[in-house]
Amino acid sequence: MRTRPGHREEVVSILLGGADGLRAAGCHVYVVGVSDDDDQTIWVNEVWESKEHHDASLRLPETRAAIATAMPLLTGEFTSQEIRVLGGLGVPPE
Amino acid sequence: MRTRPGHREEVVSILLGGADGLRAAGCHVYVVGVSDDDDQTIWVNEVWESKEHHDASLRLPETRAAIATAMPLLTGEFTSQEIRVLGGLGVPPE
Repeated sequence: MRTRPGHREEVVSILLGGADGLRAAGCHVYVVGVSDDDDQTIWVNEVWESKEHHDASLRLPETRAAIATAMPLLTGEFTSQEIRVLGGLGVPPE
Repeated sequence: MRTRPGHREEVVSILLGGADGLRAAGCHVYVVGVSDDDDQTIWVNEVWESKEHHDASLRLPETRAAIATAMPLLTGEFTSQEIRVLGGLGVPPE
């Protein structure tokens, strides 16, 4: 996702602020990162127990509040790639 | 990474075959996934203790053997994005 100039760190804080509650919602991995040569973009990699768990998490009051707080700080540019996880380290076996 | 037609599952097996040894090499997350609408592409998301740990892992005999086995099955098309991990779930705090 792309943030308005000067707001990257604020959005990172919002994203990380909700990380503690993610495991109970069915999230296995949630990685927030940035690149030192792009001060407006934030990358988020997530692995969920199922698509349904992810969809349900978006309806949680705390998620909705975080999205509402972050939205005005974003440009609206999002790219995403949904994948089917086959295995690895830090994720349950399929 | 992109595989030659018909070789996606074989390359996935090679990638997953080395997953057990990754933690000892300094890897925190290693996610191998595919998309159901693209039968030649494999996505790999990795989080490492440091760039040095990742670089060192590429020099391990088992890694070199896996790369040598997979290489003829790939088209040579790779895209990657290196990010600095700031936190989340499943990764150590910065």
